[in-house]
Amino acid sequence: MKDNLLCPHCGKPVFRYRNPFPTVDIIIEIECCASNGIVLIKRKNPPHGWALPGGFVDYGETLESAAIREAREETCLDVTLTCQLGAYSDPSRDPRHHSISVVFVAKAIAHAQNRWPKAADDAEEVGIFKAHALPKPLAFDHEKILRDYFKKCGKKG
Amino acid sequence: MKDNLLCPHCGKPVFRYRNPFPTVDIIIEIECCASNGIVLIKRKNPPHGWALPGGFVDYGETLESAAIREAREETCLDVTLTCQLGAYSDPSRDPRHHSISVVFVAKAIAHAQNRWPKAADDAEEVGIFKAHALPKPLAFDHEKILRDYFKKCGKKG
Repeated sequence: MKDNLLCPHCGKPVFRYRNPFPTVDIIIEIECCASNGIVLIKRKNPPHGWALPGGFVDYGETLESAAIREAREETCLDVTLTCQLGAYSDPSRDPRHHSISVVFVAKAIAHAQNRWPKAADDAEEVGIFKAHALPKPLAFDHEKILRDYFKKCGKKG
Repeated sequence: MKDNLLCPHCGKPVFRYRNPFPTVDIIIEIECCASNGIVLIKRKNPPHGWALPGGFVDYGETLESAAIREAREETCLDVTLTCQLGAYSDPSRDPRHHSISVVFVAKAIAHAQNRWPKAADDAEEVGIFKAHALPKPLAFDHEKILRDYFKKCGKKG
């Protein structure tokens, strides 16, 4: 598909192919004190709601590096990646544009300096949730992603 | 990362963020007569060598649709997708640019009209190969992808 980009200098159209945007999302498993669950952020910007930490993959960056970077930027947690859950690409999954998300499962590093999540960057709030008590609304297709995760990884609330 | 795109009308730079290109590759399992194996194509364009069928994901297209479309365009086979093998994103996996490939495993549909692969589009030649007799050279990171596939799916030559 051709892009409808306009030159900011002369205002004429600059044609180029348009591709979906590659992104990552991270399901961060955390164990701390008597509590364990997964880390979700409350989004500062639209679309509002709770969501998995995640974001765009930079040119020249691997998916794995992007996942570790985004987890740190939005939750202040250092994580180790466990596996890929899968890639999600429904064009309507993000109301702003067509993005493709590769979803990783990760563990927060227990001995890291930052052991407890803190909201930062695009996150207004951060929380730890169990399968049976997920917050609402969940943005994007993250409800489906989490359903797939709890089913595949056999996690109980 | 900013793109270094130039306006074709006034020649001035048009800044925009540059993202890796999302692509798909397909490991097509085929059974026919006494032979079974996976379908590889010999590339018409650089980088030359044998490769999995695959290509760019269009804006507005799911990964699954892109995989079925690319399999048909390059091998004339109708396929059903079995699972995702994983996503590969090493920036050096394609010498032309940074692409991210989501790799699918698929079966050629035995009752389809086109039961036998035929080279088309970017493919100069097509062949059916077993694990112990893969052709050389394999382009991109397809040797690694196929190693992962044979290991994960337990396929023997």
